[in-house]
Amino acid sequence: MNNYNSMLPSNIRELIRVGKITGPTAGMSKGYTQANLAILKKEYAYDFLLFCQRNPKSCPLIDVTDVGSFVPNSIARDADIRTDIPKYRIYKDGVYIKEVTDITDYWENDMVAFLIGCSFTFETPLLEAGISIRHIDENCNVPMYKTNIACAKAGIFEGPTVVSMRPMTSVDAIRAIQITSKFPGVHGAPIHIGDPSQIGIADISNPDFGDSVTIKDGEIPVFWACGVTPQAVAMQSKPSIMITHAPGCMFISDLKDEQLSVL
Amino acid sequence: MNNYNSMLPSNIRELIRVGKITGPTAGMSKGYTQANLAILKKEYAYDFLLFCQRNPKSCPLIDVTDVGSFVPNSIARDADIRTDIPKYRIYKDGVYIKEVTDITDYWENDMVAFLIGCSFTFETPLLEAGISIRHIDENCNVPMYKTNIACAKAGIFEGPTVVSMRPMTSVDAIRAIQITSKFPGVHGAPIHIGDPSQIGIADISNPDFGDSVTIKDGEIPVFWACGVTPQAVAMQSKPSIMITHAPGCMFISDLKDEQLSVL
Repeated sequence: MNNYNSMLPSNIRELIRVGKITGPTAGMSKGYTQANLAILKKEYAYDFLLFCQRNPKSCPLIDVTDVGSFVPNSIARDADIRTDIPKYRIYKDGVYIKEVTDITDYWENDMVAFLIGCSFTFETPLLEAGISIRHIDENCNVPMYKTNIACAKAGIFEGPTVVSMRPMTSVDAIRAIQITSKFPGVHGAPIHIGDPSQIGIADISNPDFGDSVTIKDGEIPVFWACGVTPQAVAMQSKPSIMITHAPGCMFISDLKDEQLSVL
Repeated sequence: MNNYNSMLPSNIRELIRVGKITGPTAGMSKGYTQANLAILKKEYAYDFLLFCQRNPKSCPLIDVTDVGSFVPNSIARDADIRTDIPKYRIYKDGVYIKEVTDITDYWENDMVAFLIGCSFTFETPLLEAGISIRHIDENCNVPMYKTNIACAKAGIFEGPTVVSMRPMTSVDAIRAIQITSKFPGVHGAPIHIGDPSQIGIADISNPDFGDSVTIKDGEIPVFWACGVTPQAVAMQSKPSIMITHAPGCMFISDLKDEQLSVL
């Protein structure tokens, strides 16, 4: 695994393509931006693109392919989005069908791939600033929650904002707000700190996605808009077909994290 | 004019709507974000939206209306985009037809209005930091140039990036880079400083749009991606109809400049 950390994205994608890597990508190609994937047919693409434009905190687009193209040109010129993610999920009419490691057989000429920034990107500078990240310490997935914060509607797409949560001391929370503010392309600053009930989370120990983590005495939960939002919203709108990455199995781009920093 | 500076955007828009204001909006409702306008029919909207997504420095979208809606909901709930801009330009098949002060008669049910961030927004914090802005001092329009920096193509839309230029001392230029970096929603950091020929500008004293300004000894030109880019590109692609604001006659939103700052 240590080896994967320091490998170039193109080499990791090659290993994924030939089936040597089929699991989560956390920590691979350290310093390079990983992305969420949502593939939709062209008939849904305008509404989905508009949805992302209207909800930039939860849906920060880092690339959108041309109609029918499986190459995310601006973030990885030599990649093939149909084969270069370890695991995909297929949804039909909003219903989960199955997981596959290659979607070549599902690809259609009118499909568009949306690559959406992932909070893995800002975790690196947080760690470098000496802020420990609980779900990394506890070796589990980040806890994610549906909130009562409605996304701005766009065409057929509407639904609640999903957030990820990282508990920290208040000093670390302040620093984390400063650091993540520099990364609007990967969710940016938190959208809430403190009382979970204010954003409609009834039980912080029971996340809707991912795993529960320890919140120590004196720590406050810090909530960021999450890239699961567009997937959750799109599924709710029941498009005829939708393909996403499987949780934790992200697309590793050639973009360096620092290229997404605005300051 | 001083009166207009301190009026609320909704009051200024009312004066515009009834024909009391028909000229440039620079300085009006100080502290509130002004926006460029591009209206296209739905058939061009996906390509244009994608073009803006792929070229966020020149085309920072701050709102996109629903198809057929003339209300820019997220930046001015009570506005009507057909009447609330002092002067519009009508283009057919890429050819300029005429200027009008009301586009109600031109509005069609399949039109979409794109509101694009304007660099007026970051000029306020530059001035507040003690950086003088030459075109304001010389009471003229900002100089704008076509460059050899190609925009990322999207569907039918492609063309060169247009930049605005502000000459400054190197100390001011450094500070200006810091300040404008905080405003990715209104073009963000400069895209070039110094030698104009490096970005294909042959004669800095002869701008393609706007007015020429004095560059003093020891000053360097600082270039920002410009909101004229999407208009220029769209016109070049000759859509059947396109409506824009007239130069300098912007849409004044209810959004405060500071709401667009990421830090």
